[in-house]
Amino acid sequence: MPQSYRLVRRDARREPTVVRLKSGATFGGDEIAICAGPCGVESKEQLEEAARAVAEAGANVLRGGAYKPRTSPYSFQGLGEEALKMLRDAGDRHGLGVVTEVMDPRDVERVTQYADMLQIGTRNMQNFPLLREVGASRIPVLLKRGLSATVQEWLLAAEYVLLGGNESLVLCERGVRSFDVATRNLLDIAVVPLLEELTHLPVVVDPSHAMGIARLVPPVAVASIAAGADGLLIEVHPDPPNALSDGAQSLDCAAFAALMRRLAPVAEFAGRKLPKRNVAVDGAPGTSAYRPLPEKSDNASKPASAVRSSSRGVRLA
Amino acid sequence: MPQSYRLVRRDARREPTVVRLKSGATFGGDEIAICAGPCGVESKEQLEEAARAVAEAGANVLRGGAYKPRTSPYSFQGLGEEALKMLRDAGDRHGLGVVTEVMDPRDVERVTQYADMLQIGTRNMQNFPLLREVGASRIPVLLKRGLSATVQEWLLAAEYVLLGGNESLVLCERGVRSFDVATRNLLDIAVVPLLEELTHLPVVVDPSHAMGIARLVPPVAVASIAAGADGLLIEVHPDPPNALSDGAQSLDCAAFAALMRRLAPVAEFAGRKLPKRNVAVDGAPGTSAYRPLPEKSDNASKPASAVRSSSRGVRLA
Amino acid sequence: MPQSYRLVRRDARREPTVVRLKSGATFGGDEIAICAGPCGVESKEQLEEAARAVAEAGANVLRGGAYKPRTSPYSFQGLGEEALKMLRDAGDRHGLGVVTEVMDPRDVERVTQYADMLQIGTRNMQNFPLLREVGASRIPVLLKRGLSATVQEWLLAAEYVLLGGNESLVLCERGVRSFDVATRNLLDIAVVPLLEELTHLPVVVDPSHAMGIARLVPPVAVASIAAGADGLLIEVHPDPPNALSDGAQSLDCAAFAALMRRLAPVAEFAGRKLPKRNVAVDGAPGTSAYRPLPEKSDNASKPASAVRSSSRGVRLA
Amino acid sequence: MPQSYRLVRRDARREPTVVRLKSGATFGGDEIAICAGPCGVESKEQLEEAARAVAEAGANVLRGGAYKPRTSPYSFQGLGEEALKMLRDAGDRHGLGVVTEVMDPRDVERVTQYADMLQIGTRNMQNFPLLREVGASRIPVLLKRGLSATVQEWLLAAEYVLLGGNESLVLCERGVRSFDVATRNLLDIAVVPLLEELTHLPVVVDPSHAMGIARLVPPVAVASIAAGADGLLIEVHPDPPNALSDGAQSLDCAAFAALMRRLAPVAEFAGRKLPKRNVAVDGAPGTSAYRPLPEKSDNASKPASAVRSSSRGVRLA
Repeated sequence: MPQSYRLVRRDARREPTVVRLKSGATFGGDEIAICAGPCGVESKEQLEEAARAVAEAGANVLRGGAYKPRTSPYSFQGLGEEALKMLRDAGDRHGLGVVTEVMDPRDVERVTQYADMLQIGTRNMQNFPLLREVGASRIPVLLKRGLSATVQEWLLAAEYVLLGGNESLVLCERGVRSFDVATRNLLDIAVVPLLEELTHLPVVVDPSHAMGIARLVPPVAVASIAAGADGLLIEVHPDPPNALSDGAQSLDCAAFAALMRRLAPVAEFAGRKLPKRNVAVDGAPGTSAYRPLPEKSDNASKPASAVRSSSRGVRLA
Repeated sequence: MPQSYRLVRRDARREPTVVRLKSGATFGGDEIAICAGPCGVESKEQLEEAARAVAEAGANVLRGGAYKPRTSPYSFQGLGEEALKMLRDAGDRHGLGVVTEVMDPRDVERVTQYADMLQIGTRNMQNFPLLREVGASRIPVLLKRGLSATVQEWLLAAEYVLLGGNESLVLCERGVRSFDVATRNLLDIAVVPLLEELTHLPVVVDPSHAMGIARLVPPVAVASIAAGADGLLIEVHPDPPNALSDGAQSLDCAAFAALMRRLAPVAEFAGRKLPKRNVAVDGAPGTSAYRPLPEKSDNASKPASAVRSSSRGVRLA
Repeated sequence: MPQSYRLVRRDARREPTVVRLKSGATFGGDEIAICAGPCGVESKEQLEEAARAVAEAGANVLRGGAYKPRTSPYSFQGLGEEALKMLRDAGDRHGLGVVTEVMDPRDVERVTQYADMLQIGTRNMQNFPLLREVGASRIPVLLKRGLSATVQEWLLAAEYVLLGGNESLVLCERGVRSFDVATRNLLDIAVVPLLEELTHLPVVVDPSHAMGIARLVPPVAVASIAAGADGLLIEVHPDPPNALSDGAQSLDCAAFAALMRRLAPVAEFAGRKLPKRNVAVDGAPGTSAYRPLPEKSDNASKPASAVRSSSRGVRLA
Repeated sequence: MPQSYRLVRRDARREPTVVRLKSGATFGGDEIAICAGPCGVESKEQLEEAARAVAEAGANVLRGGAYKPRTSPYSFQGLGEEALKMLRDAGDRHGLGVVTEVMDPRDVERVTQYADMLQIGTRNMQNFPLLREVGASRIPVLLKRGLSATVQEWLLAAEYVLLGGNESLVLCERGVRSFDVATRNLLDIAVVPLLEELTHLPVVVDPSHAMGIARLVPPVAVASIAAGADGLLIEVHPDPPNALSDGAQSLDCAAFAALMRRLAPVAEFAGRKLPKRNVAVDGAPGTSAYRPLPEKSDNASKPASAVRSSSRGVRLA
């Protein structure tokens, strides 16, 4: 193990890290985290429909892109701050945490006003000024693996964030580039147990970007939890054929609900639980730009990554 | 889907294929197949110890190399026909089917005299004379994916075998070559559900060669079954540190037994069962070079790949 | 060819683009461009020695990192603005243009004050805020290919810059990630003729990062020019064994001079010339932060990419 | 360098190996070798036209497939022994050596009766029984690099052949598998100088299979010779659009002749010569299945790989 894994290495902490969002969702604890929602926020209606559906099915974090990194400058680039507001509103209304991507170091402060977790996307895994900027913030970070990043490079990118003082980091495997076009990327499921050995940080899997094909998402999601993942990132769209981005890999609401029903026994097998359902939040929407839900307020005052459990270390046979 | 997937394509058969060895083990049916044993057959003692351990833990097929494809001509190359005899004896003694690799078209007939299943290794996935030779035989074939073969190339290699008249073919994912040295290969778990769509042939996973690190084998084995794999190929050695090949990725007998206990609930979750234990075979070893075990004799007379009704098609949500 | 290659596609311009630096160096014209210098600027002495040596050997652009993207946060990160000043001074003193990397959109303006060309590094090829920022500037851009970027993704990254209004862009092949550790990256020499078909933009090759081994740099540099490249980016350090970064792949001054002698006949074979030597500039160092050399002042007032020649199109047999 | 590079390593011989065919063509000597011809032998007429054209343009070895390894069993598989006879006849008639692929160890003896050099194709680089079989023969071998073989694996495959007693082996780079579909494979030009350091064996390049696009073949062929390659393997077809295989990457006869004219000055730059033209052989065709041309009979009696003093070692600057 490289000398420079100072802060991320497994033995830098006594217990595995549990990252906790203000909304109460945790990564690395007894509950797995289910982050679901559309690739891009397209409209209030689209987002509301998606948020309601994923909350009802049992997700605890809403994902959605406000700033979209797109290969072509002519593709839909996201709605920006308007989308951030919609995400915050929908998250509050449905008791969901909000995770969304930030691409520009100059946007970190703005996105932090609305989101509970900042996503660093695949293309920015080694965008060091951006890593330093989120390292200087105190909001949880979801660090996606680079398109062809080695595990070592990925952990050293995480080291940049922790070195900045931000210890609430979750690693997200989303498939790497491969020679085969049969799937969009090649999901490297081995990193789930491997990272459990190498680091104290939680690890989640994004099967949607890995597969690129909606039908393949559920079996791979199930396998990821069976392998010990701390959560999932799933693209869900109310109307995939008409999505402005990533329609082919998005589950519709019914398919997502079916997946959630399949996940319960697998989570149990893996010694974990699905997120507890937030009841009766529909009637008490937040009114502020950011308002932690009442029943989570105790946790919200704790440092984001303070809560620890030691159950993770035993999952590797 | 290419025009040339004539025989392998999913809709070329009404039901998914179930491949049955003379020993009674099946691939693609209700039971998952557990093929376990040493990388290379090194001695009678080593093999006996491995065979007994894997049989006791619940495996139903013994794997072991008699002819070893080795990157260097100076590495251990296998014991050849002597190893084939040992495999047959150990298989009979413990009620296990025998799968072993054949590398040379001139060896197919000889290996067929001893083995229940011929393995075509990664390096030979596109060795077309060898594919034609095993296609002309009537013994089940385990076709490993090439080191950087696309799914399409893999299925077309299988097409060579089926076109020769041999319909008893099982595909084996064993990881593909990648840029990251963190694991030996990169296990492409997505092919499990993908192949279930594309072909009627069963699919098993070899996590040992994919990982190259014994500790990572169990979680990935579990994930493979959760994703719907029809079986596993696991390297087990009584004394991994002193193995002549692949010691680093071999489970010892205790670790394999622990894995088998973990697999039972996952198999059930996936709508499958572990292989039924063969009892009381230790006291009635076979005496001939190849003697189907009595309780399997009915099956032995059936065509090896008789199409059976199976629940496989519904596993993909 | 994708619809979205609107501005970069070959037929978007009548003639291939010639990118011209204020210093007079051109990319895509009759002269090939030779950018040479240390990986990172380490001290005034190191840079002066390198700059003098590469100028004497016939380079026309000085390369050197002020802001270094490093995999580990504990590695040398560059001297920042201090290094920019040293680069400007050394460039002026030796009649060399200056190219240096910019990693942060907030640094673009500052770097532009000192450099003649902004390098977008491999890790930032799809850093879209950064691409937009350099697209809004009017200084030539060197866009390195991403670590595993397809040619299509690379051209679409260039499209972001051109769409911003900055048409002075040079593409730089520096090797892609591969499964083989024999060299640091895998140089994709085919992109040189391929890009000549697809785009009007000039293409240079960086054999230093591609090889990672100094001994392999000269033959690959020669091959690149033979294949039609418009220039080279070569790491040269006065004392490679003691370099703070990339020592193993840096030529020492003598090896660089030897390479330049070999390049002359190859350039001629390819219908090109080496850069014309700037004489007598040593005695008239610039004093301002940025002072175009007198004999280049005519060009400096022209739009950076206005000068065109039509000789490039015929090099592909 | 691995211990097991016993016979292939550079310092296992005093001088670089020069491999000589019975026809007189050499690999690794002062002349570069130009092997050209169709992907597959389709008919007497097609082959005759191709052979005459490549001989007139200056090639010295005729390439053509009699046994074709094809991804699909439904693709054209080659004409077998009939094609071998045609190759021999055309080679004799035009003073060309003959290189053709052998895929099956049982075919080695038959192919040896007709060919001057046995090609081991990409898919068979680690077909160890085949390597042993050609190692036991005394006919020169052309060993193509595997689709994703490391340089180390490639050299160890060569070691199998040399260990069998056959020292006349030429390595052929033909591109490796990559994530980008812009070209068929990714030509690894760095192996040319790298292998010159690591081994005494000659190295040639096959730009046709690397590119998959005929227009890109000439610039890459030129670059390969500039980098120090000992020869080229080029697909040439009299009528590429109607070729039964590899039409898209085949040069027509005029394009090949144009390439040969471009190669002369590059070869000279690299300190080499194009093959000397064989004159007046058209009027004296061979009549036997294998008849060394009269003017080559002296060489034919020499050991095929007699070690010759060569300037190769100094080409790496």
